[in-house]
Parts: sequence; structure tokens; C-alpha cells
Amino acid sequence: MTTTAQHRPTSALLITDVRLRDGSQVDVSIADGRIAAIGAGLPREPGVTLEDGAGALLLPGFVEGHTHLDKTNWGMRWYRNEVGPKLTDRIENERRWRAGSGHDAGAQSLALARAFLQAGTTRLRTHVDIDTDAGLRHLEGVLATRDTLRDVLDMQIVAFPQSGLLGRAGTDALLDCALSAGADVLGALDPALIDGDPVASLDVTFGLAERHHKPIDIHLHEPGEIGAFTLGLLLDRVAALGMQGQVVVSHAFCLGALPERERDALLERLADLRVALLTTAPSSTLVPPLKTCLEKGVTLFGGNDGIRDTWTPYGSPDMLERAMLIAMRYGLRRDDDLALAFDCVSSTAARACGFTDYGLHAGARADLVLVDADTLAHALVARPPRKLVVANGQTVARHGAAPESLN
Amino acid sequence: MTTTAQHRPTSALLITDVRLRDGSQVDVSIADGRIAAIGAGLPREPGVTLEDGAGALLLPGFVEGHTHLDKTNWGMRWYRNEVGPKLTDRIENERRWRAGSGHDAGAQSLALARAFLQAGTTRLRTHVDIDTDAGLRHLEGVLATRDTLRDVLDMQIVAFPQSGLLGRAGTDALLDCALSAGADVLGALDPALIDGDPVASLDVTFGLAERHHKPIDIHLHEPGEIGAFTLGLLLDRVAALGMQGQVVVSHAFCLGALPERERDALLERLADLRVALLTTAPSSTLVPPLKTCLEKGVTLFGGNDGIRDTWTPYGSPDMLERAMLIAMRYGLRRDDDLALAFDCVSSTAARACGFTDYGLHAGARADLVLVDADTLAHALVARPPRKLVVANGQTVARHGAAPESLN
Repeated sequence: MTTTAQHRPTSALLITDVRLRDGSQVDVSIADGRIAAIGAGLPREPGVTLEDGAGALLLPGFVEGHTHLDKTNWGMRWYRNEVGPKLTDRIENERRWRAGSGHDAGAQSLALARAFLQAGTTRLRTHVDIDTDAGLRHLEGVLATRDTLRDVLDMQIVAFPQSGLLGRAGTDALLDCALSAGADVLGALDPALIDGDPVASLDVTFGLAERHHKPIDIHLHEPGEIGAFTLGLLLDRVAALGMQGQVVVSHAFCLGALPERERDALLERLADLRVALLTTAPSSTLVPPLKTCLEKGVTLFGGNDGIRDTWTPYGSPDMLERAMLIAMRYGLRRDDDLALAFDCVSSTAARACGFTDYGLHAGARADLVLVDADTLAHALVARPPRKLVVANGQTVARHGAAPESLN
Repeated sequence: MTTTAQHRPTSALLITDVRLRDGSQVDVSIADGRIAAIGAGLPREPGVTLEDGAGALLLPGFVEGHTHLDKTNWGMRWYRNEVGPKLTDRIENERRWRAGSGHDAGAQSLALARAFLQAGTTRLRTHVDIDTDAGLRHLEGVLATRDTLRDVLDMQIVAFPQSGLLGRAGTDALLDCALSAGADVLGALDPALIDGDPVASLDVTFGLAERHHKPIDIHLHEPGEIGAFTLGLLLDRVAALGMQGQVVVSHAFCLGALPERERDALLERLADLRVALLTTAPSSTLVPPLKTCLEKGVTLFGGNDGIRDTWTPYGSPDMLERAMLIAMRYGLRRDDDLALAFDCVSSTAARACGFTDYGLHAGARADLVLVDADTLAHALVARPPRKLVVANGQTVARHGAAPESLN
């Protein structure tokens, strides 16, 4: 399911004098886009480019688990938000704005994807609007962005019916085309409260996913008992179709609102069926419980959601900031707890999305970030400029700025 | 009650081509530490220093409504937090740490106060620990910091019994000394859940405040019904002693948890007695309702709480970030709503704390911040480097860095 960046041969690199999160001092050797070795005092071979880490903290490339590159106004003139408070207000407003603004999903997704890279994100899952107004236009733009950055950014595209699936005839056919045209994952949206028919909506979604052998990532904003009901229907289908390990439920606000017994029963089913949860850790809404998820064996990972679009003024391509917001949302203060929040935007997100060859070990793809920080917790709260970002073995940013070649 | 910075004569300054939050383009003339005029096309008098705003957004100097300068590890090696989850764990841990670490409240408060100034904060209320272990040592350190920065930073000091008031004999006498020695405001802490006797605790607090003719700022973490009970006792005393407009309740988590009718009755009493509320807008805890407070006429303003201390790894001297976190906590997305969050760390905070001569109008103290941002909402979410910070008519930062004189 993952779209692995091509392995263009890159020159060998030795990064010396960096610190792992446990404080140990190591060197990292990189060859042909992979980590060849990590350890103390690695030999300096002739012909290998040397990079002095100067004691910086070494982190794996970050993983954005849920964003909407195609919608963003990143780098454009500020969008003045005067939108009503309901979910449908935001959907209608965006569709109107898209029609009238000349918004270019290709150019915008490229600008934001580059900002992600420069801030250290090397793997990214983006939901792309598919509807009967926009057709596949946004998908085409984001596919072009993926192609432009294919050597450095590992991008998964979710075909997402932002305006609903059942309410607008022809949406299912467009999703079908999107999955054939290069989308990696099938998206979905509130089968009860947007589509009005959770059984029919989920049946169409799972039918499409099964036909294309593609995983599912559903936006489930439905609150409390109705969200729990929809989630139950979804889990029935995961079990019936043998889609264990291939479904993500994004947001899942309902799991923050249910009585403990009902919540825990759902968490146990999620764990059994290896259905992962994605949270943006919104501070004004209920969220699935992080530590209980860990105890129950449920994978919970993190992402931004939209960034500076007609939905929200917030969001940042800096995943250290998202990790900090996750840690704050869960009331985490201890250093060992802040590390859990970082995992949400790194190793856990990679596992949940199916990004392979991830991490700081020999054989993994060489996706590395260096920051000047005493510890991992310090890096989260200080969010220092990226001293160096290496993606698939290539240097893509230095001192917070991108090399000429990426601009 | 406010400690106004001294008016050292400063050279006249004309800042041209800046934008107000309504988008209008103006110039600002400054003389003798005050705003002399704001308007389009102000005359360029000879001998006046010119500063080209180049279209930047003009904001008033920010106001930090609640921090703890004396506790911070700002600029020091990272403090590894391994503290237990209870309020008393944090209090005990800090007292142990203070005794053993050689922490210097003077040097630390100065480092953080300078960081606040450089990020655009020109008025600040800080709670300073007073207890039977530390005595007045922290107060002395923060008084020295206030004196060092007296020409540019308007600082209020709250004498705060961090270890409780009743539990350690002699604390009331220390608070008495602190109020005589230069503290502007009397602090207090959870009269029921820390002191164990809300009536006795509040009586000591109000007695001290009355004797010194000083206002009160109480930390009230007490949740739900017990918090409401304590708050009711406090309001009785405000009414009985005629202390309307002289009391702040910090945190007031209970107001986020009560049934609507009980909550609204308390909000109406708060409005009648002009008792203001301070929130740090924590994302993991209940908070007083911002829009209901506005409707009921209750003043709600914002602050960081501690910054990188033994309590919390979070916090930042950038009040634009705090405004963003407040806006996120209250689920605000519209531009006009984000402006309310900015008011919490500017005009509303100034009014609540009693900082006088505040704002962007002729006659106000010349406390100004210039940022490159399209709009106020943009400034909150992008938190751009401060292009210029003027405090009491003096330039204290430029391009995010302080002039030599402040370092």
C-alpha cells in the first residue's frame, strides 16, 4: 500500500557526533538511500561525504498521518474565515470557494509538501477531495506533487469524498476512478450524519475497497452513541472481509465521550481487528484516550488535519509542533510521556499507515532530522530549526532552509 | 496597583506605513515614551528618528497575565521531568529541587523577562513563590529583575504562597513582609484542597489584602462543586470588603464543569463584583467558557502559567502563541473570533490587571509590536518574528533579536 520513493543512487554520507534519544553518542553512515550503520566511532571511508553533527539530537524523519495538502492556502494571501459553525457550513463554504477562487491544488499541495520536507517530514498521508464538482482535479494536482517529490517524500494519497458519498450521485464512480488512477487508500466520511445511511454508506465503501484491494481511512466525526454505532458497523465489516490491519479511523471523537465499559469494549475490538486510530488532538473536542489505547493494544497516531484552509486557520508543517500539541492535549508532562507523543508522529504513524523501512536502524530508509536540543522532550517544546534533514539519503534542508534544488 | 515604568526621556520616533487590525494604513509618532499621534500621513518633523514600517501589522505590546518568572529553567540545561501526577507531588518536588539545585530566581527571572520583551510583551504579572523554605529569596530576585528592566517592562509581582498558607506556620508573616517589600498583589492557593480550611484561609488572605490595600490574585484549581463552593466564599468576601474590581481568580477550572444554571449564577456574581478570570487555556482540563463570560460581562484574560520549570515543560514567552492556544482551546476559527483570543493577551489583560495607559491611541504608553502578517489572525497562527518591539518609547527588539543594550 505504500508508495516507496525511488532509490536514485546517492553518494555515501557519514554523519558524525549525533545523539540518540537515550543520550548515547553515535555516527550514522548512509549509502544508496539507506542507513548502512549506526554506532559509535564508525570508520571514515575515502570518498564519503562527511557531515559534522556537532552533538545534535538525531531523530527519524517525521510522519504526517493525516493532512489535506490539496486544500491549503499555504503561502497565499490570508483567507479570512467567516464560515458558520456546522460541519455542513464548512463543506458548502469550501465547495463554493473552490469554484470561485481559482484554487490550484497542484501548486498548493507542492508548496505545503515542500514545507513539510524542510521541517523534517519524509512520509505523509494526505486526503484528497473527490466530488462531483471538482471531479479528479485535486487528485491530478496531488499526483503531480507526488511525482515531483518522489525521490524524497513518501506520500500516500487517500481518495476522500469530502461532500459525502451517497448524497451526490456519481461520487462512487469517481472514487473508483481515483483508486485506479493512483490513490493508495479509500477515504470515507461520517456514514450516518453526512450520508444519512450508515449501512449503505459503509457497504459502498467496503465494496470499493475490496474490489481495488485498497485499505480504508475514514473520517469519523460522529459523536458519542451515534459514533459508537457507526464504529461498530465498521468493525463488523472489517471482520467479515478480513481487512484486519488495513483500516484507520480518523478523529473517532466518540471514543472520548462514551462510558468506560462501552468505550473499552470498542477499544478491545479495535485492537483485535488491528484497526488504528488517528487523532489531531484537538483541544476543543473530546479525543480517544491515549494511555488506555496503549494499554489495550490500540494503535493511536497523529496528524495535523487541514493546514490554513477554508476549514481552519491552524496547523503547521512542523510535526514537532503537532507532537507538542498532542502531548499537551493528553496532559503529558514527564519526559517519558512526551516521548509517547513523539512516537505518534514517527514510528507509530509509520506502522499505522504501512510506511515500510522506517526508523533509525541499519537497512531503514535514510530519513533523518538533526536538531539542537538537549533531549527529545526539549525538541518537542522548543521546536528548534532543523539543522539538517535527510530524506531517502538526500539532504533536503539545512538550517531550516531548503537547498536551491528544492525551491 | 500597577508599577508604571519610569519615563526616561526618549528621542522622538515616527514609524511610517503600518497597518492597524482593521487594515487601515497609518503612521505612529512617539515622543517621551508616549504615543503622540496615530493617523495617515503624519508630518515628518526635523530631528525625529524615522522607522519605515514597510506595511507591517501594528499591534499593541502584549500583556502576560499570569506567569512564574522565578521558577523557570529558561535557557538552562533541560530539566528532566519525572514528577508524579498530583498537585502535591509537584509542590513537594519543586521544593526539594529548589533546595538542591542552586536555582537563582534573580538570574532566571531576568533571562525569561528579557525573552518576553524581545517577543513583544511589555506588561507582565508574575507570581513569586513565598514559603517558609525559600523565605523572600525569590521575591528579592524578581524585584531586582523588575528594577533592571524598569524603563521598558511594566511588571506586577504577586506574593504567592506556593506551599500553602495555613499548613506552614509563618507563611502569613512572610506574605506580610512581601507586601511591604514591593509585591503589588497578594496571591493565594486552593483554600479548601491545599489549605484544608477554605473559610480560615480566605479570611487570612482577605485580612492581609485589606491591611495592605492590595488586590488579590488567587490560584483556584479546585474542580467542580468544591471549586464552586470556594468561589462562593471568595465572592462573599469581595462584596463584604468592597473589593470590587480588585480580585482575579486564576484557572477557575470549576467554571468549566458546573451545570449551566449554577455556572451562570456564579458568572453573574463575578460580573457584578467585577472579579476577573485568568485562563491559560489548558487543552487537557476544563476551562471557563469564553463566549458565555463575554455575554455575562465577565472579564476573561490569558497567560502562560509557568514556563519550562519543574511543573511543566511547556510555555513560551511569545504571547502570540498563547493567544493561538487560547483560540484553539475555545474552538475558534473565524477571524473575528481569533481577535477575541488576542484581546485576552492584550487589552483585556491590561484592564484586568490594572495596567494603565494601555493601547494604540494618543496618550498611551508607546508599547508597540510590528510583525509581517496579512491580518491579526494570520499573526496568531504564524507567530512571525517580531520586526520591531518598542517598549515605553524605546526600541527593545528588532528582527526577533534584542539590541546589544538589553543582552
